[in-house]
Order: sequence, then C-alpha cells, then structure tokens
Amino acid sequence: MGRLSALFDPETVGVVGATDREGAVGRAILENLRGGFDGEVVPINPSRETVLGLECYPDAKSAPPIDLAVVVVPPDIVIESIRELAETGTENIVVITAGFAETGSEGAKRERRLREIAAEHDLNVVGPNSLGIMATPNGMNGSFAPQTPLEGSISFLSQSGAFITAVLDWATDEGIGFQDVVSLGNKAVLDETDFIREWDDDPATDVIIGYLEDIDDGQTFLETAREVTDETPIVLVKSGRTDAGAKAASSHTGAIAGSERAYEAGLEQAGVLRAHSVQELFDYARALAGLPEPDTDGVAVVTNAGGPGVLTTDAVGDSRLEIADFTDETVGALTEALPDEANVYNPIDAIGDADVDRFGEALDIALADSNVGSAVVVAAPTAVLSYDDLAETVIEIREIHETPVVTCLMGGKRARDADTTLREAGIPNYFDPSRAVSGLDALARFRDIHEQPTDEPETFDVDREHAHEILSRATRRDNNRLGVESMDLLEAYGISTPSGEIVDDPERAREVAKSIEGDVVMKIVSPEISHKSDIGGVKVGVATDDVYDAYEDIVARARNYQPDARIVGVQVQELIDLEAATETIVGMNRDPQFGPLLLFGLGGIFVEIIEDTSVRIAPIGEREAREMIDEIQAAPLLRGARGREPADVEGIVETIQRLSQLVTDFPSILELDINPLVAGPDGVQAIDLRLTVDTDELDTENP
Amino acid sequence: MGRLSALFDPETVGVVGATDREGAVGRAILENLRGGFDGEVVPINPSRETVLGLECYPDAKSAPPIDLAVVVVPPDIVIESIRELAETGTENIVVITAGFAETGSEGAKRERRLREIAAEHDLNVVGPNSLGIMATPNGMNGSFAPQTPLEGSISFLSQSGAFITAVLDWATDEGIGFQDVVSLGNKAVLDETDFIREWDDDPATDVIIGYLEDIDDGQTFLETAREVTDETPIVLVKSGRTDAGAKAASSHTGAIAGSERAYEAGLEQAGVLRAHSVQELFDYARALAGLPEPDTDGVAVVTNAGGPGVLTTDAVGDSRLEIADFTDETVGALTEALPDEANVYNPIDAIGDADVDRFGEALDIALADSNVGSAVVVAAPTAVLSYDDLAETVIEIREIHETPVVTCLMGGKRARDADTTLREAGIPNYFDPSRAVSGLDALARFRDIHEQPTDEPETFDVDREHAHEILSRATRRDNNRLGVESMDLLEAYGISTPSGEIVDDPERAREVAKSIEGDVVMKIVSPEISHKSDIGGVKVGVATDDVYDAYEDIVARARNYQPDARIVGVQVQELIDLEAATETIVGMNRDPQFGPLLLFGLGGIFVEIIEDTSVRIAPIGEREAREMIDEIQAAPLLRGARGREPADVEGIVETIQRLSQLVTDFPSILELDINPLVAGPDGVQAIDLRLTVDTDELDTENP
Repeated sequence: MGRLSALFDPETVGVVGATDREGAVGRAILENLRGGFDGEVVPINPSRETVLGLECYPDAKSAPPIDLAVVVVPPDIVIESIRELAETGTENIVVITAGFAETGSEGAKRERRLREIAAEHDLNVVGPNSLGIMATPNGMNGSFAPQTPLEGSISFLSQSGAFITAVLDWATDEGIGFQDVVSLGNKAVLDETDFIREWDDDPATDVIIGYLEDIDDGQTFLETAREVTDETPIVLVKSGRTDAGAKAASSHTGAIAGSERAYEAGLEQAGVLRAHSVQELFDYARALAGLPEPDTDGVAVVTNAGGPGVLTTDAVGDSRLEIADFTDETVGALTEALPDEANVYNPIDAIGDADVDRFGEALDIALADSNVGSAVVVAAPTAVLSYDDLAETVIEIREIHETPVVTCLMGGKRARDADTTLREAGIPNYFDPSRAVSGLDALARFRDIHEQPTDEPETFDVDREHAHEILSRATRRDNNRLGVESMDLLEAYGISTPSGEIVDDPERAREVAKSIEGDVVMKIVSPEISHKSDIGGVKVGVATDDVYDAYEDIVARARNYQPDARIVGVQVQELIDLEAATETIVGMNRDPQFGPLLLFGLGGIFVEIIEDTSVRIAPIGEREAREMIDEIQAAPLLRGARGREPADVEGIVETIQRLSQLVTDFPSILELDINPLVAGPDGVQAIDLRLTVDTDELDTENP
Repeated sequence: MGRLSALFDPETVGVVGATDREGAVGRAILENLRGGFDGEVVPINPSRETVLGLECYPDAKSAPPIDLAVVVVPPDIVIESIRELAETGTENIVVITAGFAETGSEGAKRERRLREIAAEHDLNVVGPNSLGIMATPNGMNGSFAPQTPLEGSISFLSQSGAFITAVLDWATDEGIGFQDVVSLGNKAVLDETDFIREWDDDPATDVIIGYLEDIDDGQTFLETAREVTDETPIVLVKSGRTDAGAKAASSHTGAIAGSERAYEAGLEQAGVLRAHSVQELFDYARALAGLPEPDTDGVAVVTNAGGPGVLTTDAVGDSRLEIADFTDETVGALTEALPDEANVYNPIDAIGDADVDRFGEALDIALADSNVGSAVVVAAPTAVLSYDDLAETVIEIREIHETPVVTCLMGGKRARDADTTLREAGIPNYFDPSRAVSGLDALARFRDIHEQPTDEPETFDVDREHAHEILSRATRRDNNRLGVESMDLLEAYGISTPSGEIVDDPERAREVAKSIEGDVVMKIVSPEISHKSDIGGVKVGVATDDVYDAYEDIVARARNYQPDARIVGVQVQELIDLEAATETIVGMNRDPQFGPLLLFGLGGIFVEIIEDTSVRIAPIGEREAREMIDEIQAAPLLRGARGREPADVEGIVETIQRLSQLVTDFPSILELDINPLVAGPDGVQAIDLRLTVDTDELDTENP
C-alpha cells in the first residue's frame, strides 16, 4: 500500500468545523461518518461542547490524535486550521471548503499558501473544494454526498463532486460497488497521478475509474499510468473534448485547456481506456472488475434469437474482436446437440424454442473451442426460457472454462433478477448487444495494453553540446525563430540534411556548388522572409556555371522585395531527386499539459487538406515511431503502393526517434518542423527546418 | 388511412389453427387475443368443438365473416387455408407458420405459391414466419409474444420476432407505448415499404421505428420513405452493417446482402434516421414522439453541476447542434436571478445549492432567448433539490415556451418518479448527458429532413436513341465490356470528351491529328488489353508529323504483347492540359437492393489509398450531386486550395447528374467508370471510359 493508504484507512477522523446546524455541510459530513464508519469520529469546533451528541473539541491540540481530518471551516481560517493539525501530527487532510483558486486572485493566493504548508509538513491534502473521500471496507463516508456506496473493487476519482453524487446514486441502484472514492477538488496538492499510484498498490482495487477535466502534469501522469496499467486497468472520462466543452471546463475549474489531440495521444500512450459517457465508463469497468482476460480475440455468440444475434455480430465487427471460427470438432458437437434448424456456425442460433439446457450445452461446447477467447450469451424472452435459470447456468459453465462471458438478456422486468444473480457472480449483463461486446472489447484492449512490452526510447549517440551551441545563437540574435541556417542542429542529432552551406558572397557560392555533385538548389536565408519561393528567392537545379549570377539575382530580388530585411546569405544545397521520393513532415509543438507533441504526415495536401497526420507525446521508442507512420491513411504510399519504389521507412522511424530525443533534451524548443523530410528509396533527408526557441528556458539548460 | 388499416383495426379476428394444447403457438395467440382485444375472436380448427371455452369452427366457410385471420396451421396446409379464407372474403391474413423460404427449396416453392394466391385475391398477407401483429387502441395482440404493449404513438415494424419480444418487455418496463406493431417475417407479400406508407396516413402514429436486416426493393423504399418523412419520422436499426454481420443476417433470413455503403446512402437519401442500437432507437423515438421541433440549432444547458454540464457541452459539440450564444438581455436576466458564483453564460451553472425555483427561473430565462432552439436540464442529486418537483417545474415551463426540452436527472432510485412524471408529459429523461443531446439532435435532423425541398432530378436534353445504339454494339460483338470506343455514349448524354477518333490505319491517324490543334494522345483500342500504358500502348504529346510512326509502333507493341488480341484501332485524341486540372472519377455500379450507386472521388491515390469517395443512389438532382463533391475530404482542392485555380465544379455537378440520367435510363448498364474526368478551370472532360452492359437486359430496353 502506498503512503496515501492512511487517507482511506484512518482509525480516527476529525471533522474540523463540525456543527449540528441543520443544512450545514459540517453537519452532513459528521452524519455521514457516524452512519457507518467503524473508527472514531472527533468533532472539532471552538463554539460547541458537543455535536450530535459527540464530545466536541475546541481545536486540534486539545483533541485526541487524528489520522484524517476533514476540514470544513470558512476559507479564511483553513490555513490556520491545517497548520494546527500538522503541528499535532495529523498528516492526512481533506479540505471541503471552497473559495480557493476557483474564485479569483484572493483565492488563488490562499491556495498557494495551502500548497506551501502542505509541502512544509509533508501533508497529504485532498481538495480544496472537494466533496470529500469515501472508503467502503471501513464504512467511511468522509464527504457531504448523501449516498454511501456499496463495497466493491472499483476505486473512483473525480474532478467533479456532482459527478460522484450522480454516479453513486445510480450505481447503488445497479448494485455496483466501490473500494475508495475521492473527489479531487482543486487538486492543490494531491492529484489524479497520486491516486492511481496509490490504488495500483492496493490489492482490493481491481479497476480504477475517473472523471477528469484536465491533467495537471501530463508527463508524470503518462509515466505513472504506464506503470499502473501493467497491472491495474484505468478507465477515464476526460471531458472538454470539444471546443465548446473545453471552454465550459475552463470556466468550471479554471483549467488551462490542453489540446484534445494531446490528451487523446497521452491517454492512449498511458494505457488508459477512455470512455465517452457514464454508461461506457461502467460498461468497461464492470467487465474489467469481474472477468478473466480473453486468450484470443475470437468471440462466440450464443443466442435464441436471429435478429439480436446479427446485431451482436455487427458489434463484434465494429470492435477489435472477431467472430470466432469454430473448429470442425465444435461444429460437430453443436450439430449433435442442437436441432436441425439451428445454426451451428458462429453466431450459434439455438432457435426460438431453446430452453436453458440447450443454451447451456451450446455455450459449453463453444467455450471448449480453442479459437474462442470470450463469449456473449444473447437472449430474447420466450415462453420456454427462464432468465433466472439461464443466469445460473451461465455462471456454472463460465466457472468451468475460465473464459470471460458476458450476457445480454434482453428485456425489462423479466431480466431483473437474473441481472442481479449474474452481477453477483461477476458477470456483467448488458441491455444492448453492442454494450455487451464493448465490455469484452475493453478486456481485450486491456490485455493488449499490459502485455505490450515497454517501448523504451533509444538513446542515440548525439552531439548535445553542439546542439546547445547552435540553439544559443538564437539568443544572441534577439530572434527566437530559426530556419535553414540551423540545419546543423539536425546533423548534431544525426538527422541527414543535403550537403551544402550558407554563403554570403557569390564567389563562395560557386566554390560550394563545385564541391557538390550535379546541379544545386539556392535559397535566400533571411529571418524576415518566410515565403521564399513567392518572391523568387529560390532557384532549383542551378548549374555550377550559373551559380554566381543566380546568387546576385536572388539577393537582388530579396532586397527589392523587402529593403529592410536582414539577409544572412544564400543557401547552396545539393539537389535532391524528388521524383522517386515522398515528401513527409516531422514536427513538434509543446502542449501545456503533456509537453512535446510529435507529429508525422505526408507533405502538402495530405497535411493541409486531408489532415492526415499522427501524433505522439515524446519521448517515444521505435514501436511508437513506427505506429505513427502506419497510422496515417497515406501510409501505403510510403510502403510502395501503386507500383512506386518503397521509401526508406526505417529512416523515417529513426528520424522521428532522433527528433523525440532532441525535443526531450531541449525543453527550450517550443516548436519545430522538418518540412519536408524527403523519403527516397535509399534514405531520408531533412530539406527545410523551422523552429521556435524559448530563449530564457535555453539559458537554464546545460549543454 | 391506407388499405392496411383493416389489418390493425379488425372487428373479427379468426385464429386458423387455434388449439387449447398447452405450449402450442395456436393457444398462445388465442390467449393473447382474448386477453384484451375489444372485437370478436373466432377459433378455427376442424378437430375441436370449442377452444378455451370459445365456439370453434371447422373451417373459414362455416365461421362468421372474419376481417383478419391469423394462420398457425402446419406449413403444408397454409396455402389451402388461405385460399379458403380468401374465398369467404377475408382480405387480411397473418401467417405465423414457419417452414417457407427460410428453410430451403421446398419452402421457397411454398412461399412462391403464397405470393401467387395473395396476388390473385389481392390479399394483405403478413409473413410467413411472423410473430404476429398488434394494435393497442383496440387491445389486439395477434401474436404469440408474451407481452402486450402499452398504448402510444410509436408504430414498430421488425424483421426479427425476437427483437419485438425483447423490446416490448423492456419498453413496458420503461413506460414506452406503441400504436401498431408488426413482425414482418419473410416479407413474402407485405414489406417495410407497405407499412411505412400505411403509418404515414395514420394520424395516431407520430414516429415509425423498425429493425431490418434487408430492404427488398431499395428504390421503392427510398421513394416512399422520402414522402413519408415529409411528415412522419422514421428511425431504423439496419443490421448486417459489418461483413460478419451481413454474413450472419444472410444465414438468418436468406437475404442477399446489398452493400453497407448503398444502405447507408439509401437510408440517408430516404430521410431515415439510422440507429445503431436498441437504446439509440428509443432515444431518438422518444424525443421525436413527444417534443416540438427546435427553431434553431442553439442549445441551452441548465445545470447545478459543473462536471455534468461540461459533459453535456461536449455532447453538443459532437452533434449538429451548438451551444447557444445568449443575448445580452438573457445574460442580464440570469445575472439578476442567479447567485454571484453562478455561470450565467451557456452552460448555465446554477451551482450546487440550486433549488427547484432557481432551476426553473434559469430555464425560463434561457427559453425566452431567440438564439435558443432547445434546452437540456442536467441535474446531479443534492440535499436541496427535489427531482420530483424539478420534473413538475420543467413541464410547466416547457409548455409556456413551445421549445423542446429534454432532461438528464442523473441518479438511480432518486430519479425514478421524476422520470415517470416527465415521460407522461412527453419529455424524455435520459440517464446520460450524451443521450439527452442525441435526442435533441434527432429532432433537429428530422426538422432538416422534412424542411429540405425535394431534389428533383433534372431531365437533360439527351440523345437516348443514339445511346441505345452505341450500347447495342456490345451485344453484336459478344462482349459486354466497353471502353474508349464507346466514348460517344457520353457525348450522347452531353458529357464532353476530348476531340478525336478511333482509326484503323496510320494515314487516317495523321489526318485526325491534323484536324486537332496541338499535339495528340494516342492509345491502343483492344477489348483484350486493359493496361494499355504498361505495354507501351499509350503515347502522350505526339506531334502531327510523328503520328504515322507512332501508330505503327503502338500496334506493333500490342501485337507483340498479345498476338491474339483483337485490335480495334488506335485512338487519336486531343491532348488535355493536365497541369492546371484535377483528375476525378465519376462512376456507377448496381447494388442488388438499391440499384445504381453513383460514386465520386479524386483520381489516383485519393480513391485507391485514401478511399476518399462519396456515393448516392441514382437518380439524383443538383443538390445531391453537389453534396457528393463537398463530402470528399479533398474537396478543397477542387475549390482552389493552396493557390490553385478553382476547377469547374459546376461542370462536375452537371456531369454527375447526366450520368445519373444515363444509368437510370439504361438499367442494362451494370457498371460504368469515367476515369479520369478531368476538371480544369474552364470545363470538364471525360478522358477514359469503361462500362459493363447486361446484354439481355439491353434487348428489352426501348431506345
């Protein structure tokens, strides 16, 4: 168990601000704690002698030792109350009181002080502006939610207190239980990362679920979640997905909106299963909490109803799972067991007059097939089928096979008792075939997540010192946007660029051109001129003899176009054969939550019009670099579609990894685009570069 | 009311095959009818004198006149029973008996005879292999489903009987009522099209819903549904969407699988809202059955809970709706009505201590805003909020404003009574914010569907006779695949092609080239050679002087490549400047259910790699042709993205319409591809053509 376990398993809970005034939050919390908590409850309030019949203490100092304090005093005395608690040895504190960062600058100041005092005394602080925390094993409801949850193996964190009250009322009705519940509030001290780490160590937690509107430190969350999901599944609703939603979330919690694209990538890389509704959250969680994992992706469907069987099959088709191909043995056994009219191929249609025994036999045969990794039992009500008996049968057979089985006993009242029986045996029963399949799909996805080996970033041998030097030029120039003149930055990190040089006189231009085989490309280099082609600042395929004149022409055009532009010189570069090559883009920008977001796509219309790009949070290893390439729709073009010679995909994979290392080494790089990175059959080359540097940050970076 | 109304509103129902044998379907039906039907029930069975206490007649002739007969006799005497019924004047018959086309060739023969006798006597026959039919106004359950539905304004058709039993059990529990219900069975005579037509005329039906695995005659369904959805919404689950599902559906009903792409297009064009699960079906249906239509797409969200408010906003962002911008007046009024901490912009957060009055006031103010077309009330449980009172308040305020409102009172037990109250007032209450928004979205989608003017296909002035002549060449040649040699087919329908000719000697080639300005393109024309470029059968940019030699070279290469290929000649064609133009593809293939499926896309990688295409069922008008272009991801390329000159989009729109007319005029054209159709700034031209003709069909077509 982690260091937060004391939060959920205290022997004594103090309520600072306890009161018996009707309607007060301080009373609601005390009532909830007295309702079922098996430890001691200590009210603290200087103006009362007793509260709800319990002896009340004026302050923490005079009270017995407190393991966990729930603080519900007015905002202006929260800090003082916490100091007092800390001084008497209380380490775990939940701040219910609102009026902190969510209310403006005064509150923000107060929240900073809260953070400071927590750091000073090494306190575990939940909130402020929290609904509270709950733990079912000891019956503790340290919150002002009216509902104490049932016990179960799901631990639940939420950035919205209302989300908790809404979910608990519903979940209790559905018989869904929880282990620990925490309302994160403003997350001044403890945040989502702390709790997933804690619950990963908690043997009583099988699944972690949550509702989040932001993730404070995306990189730390990503690293932690990756470790947690080696063992414990995490399912999250992350709201603020859409522009409108992000705006609403930001006005709700004051969170700075990171990009949805970064969240999507970050959660995926972290191994988090993302749900988009309360229903999906629990559809996944129930399967993950109760069932073993499927060995293979083949699903058997057993039904008494053709139509619902087809719907289930569609749902399997939509998922990562597939309809299992039965072995001949299975087909033979089913043929023997079922009537002639039945369908013995998958989906198994045991037809309308199937009773429980026939259903059971079909399921038993299907689960014995090695191609079957999981099964859905789909039933429509008939006169000959008892759902209650069917539930018992499914439970028995599932136990024999150790294979995950979900059910979809369609109907209302008729299915209610069976639903309870199944739930108690850990088998989720769903109303809709598509939801049943999504439960199995979550199991298979989680299996893949934790079975996948870690994609360790490779550390290439690079010249970091030289790179720092190149970047430092930016600060000297009072210009934080760099271009082709910094191509040697890429070379320092082992990313090939065409041979060539930036020169500042025509004679030197000719010398450089002479040293290059074949014709050259010449480009104006000036920080003020960004659309070089438009002003005639680019010449492609210049013969050595023409280089001198071309130099003068390019410079003249640039001067003419923008007389005050500072002209660094002209780049004379090897001419790359673009005919057999594909132009790609490899780039990065920094997300406020997750940090460096890498981007890959094909150049031109593919990025600009089709928006066919893939992203990952850096650092990444080889597998994720390769996935970035495979994910784009146009990937077949690189792999040699339509009779083209395949591009050097391995070269792109390595370039993405090297860029990942570069932007990880230098947080000062705010944005970077290699556009194009030309991928030919025999190699890749970065042709053009733009980047933006945070010069203040750069100064703090060691070479 | 349509001619099928007698099916649902009979005075006398006969049960042919009635029995009191326990467990028999003939008994279940009789029991169901006796359970609530307010007309007369007549058992018919030659081997009984009474059944369940009712006088039983040996045959239809001796029985009193019967308006509707439910036939449940063994398959081999079904036809005879129907004949007898018809002869005594019964016009409406439901065949429950199975053992027809779903069971093999013997059954298929039986089904053909059933169809013949129905046609002969002009009978309305439901089934065979039907669960039966139901109508709630007269309490008739003429089925063997155990559940008689509640009364309501939803009429329901299903190709799966099990789907009906599953849905009714659940719907009764949820308080959802129905008008008419029909289990279509094998659809030997009456199908989905007949029932949607009937219900469109039925003032008691507000919404039509259904479950289908196939649509027999897509074109007729499309035309009928288009008319129906001018007034009555249709929501369908069409299963067999995925390859696995289509295979399962086909083994279930014996339906020939049409392509999912054609169904998708056909249902969309028909104005049908498509649901993908039982839940979605009813989420849509409940909104459509109970609520007025939104005037505008702006949605107001009123909540006491920040988190659920953000989730709702995300759901709006995902839909076609948008978060309404409140007027200054609204913001002012909300500021006055709500506490300082509340959010008076949309989503309105009335904060956690909001009681019913505050909720009501906020909703009232929001609905008065002219930018608000609909509203969602989202609530989390709190100590100060009574869901029951909130339900009453929402109902009152909604009635004042005539604006659609849905609710999402989150929770379990606590929300149950409020849910009932709201439902009875026609306001759907949803468990999840995303579902609540999807209900409003369905309303807006249906509004757009029935407000949209019909997209009448334009009839262009074409030379149909000449086209027939050109197509007829195919039959004479004993080859039903045509190519460039039939380009004049396109000309006959007003689709431009480059000038040129197919010639069979080099001298004539030179003459043709002379008559064309500039260089020419030359291509081998041979039905046996399809990859012309690969064998050197194409020469681009041939000067007039070189045409003679080029001719001989092309023919020699073709002979060399395939000595037995029949060489029609060489096409000498005007050279089209492809530099400023975009290559597009316009094509058609025939779907077994829906007929001509038009396709549009950009040439090359866009179609082959990105699969960026749009489809429509022909015939289509100008609007849909334009939509086909706008739908593809690469559309901006045609509209002048990235500094390109815009292509002649109007020319493409017209070409698609002319192709629509061509393939509608000639059902014998099985497949046709114009690839490429080159779209330049000043016009479009069809450069190459391939088509396949059904020569037997062609013979039956009049020129």
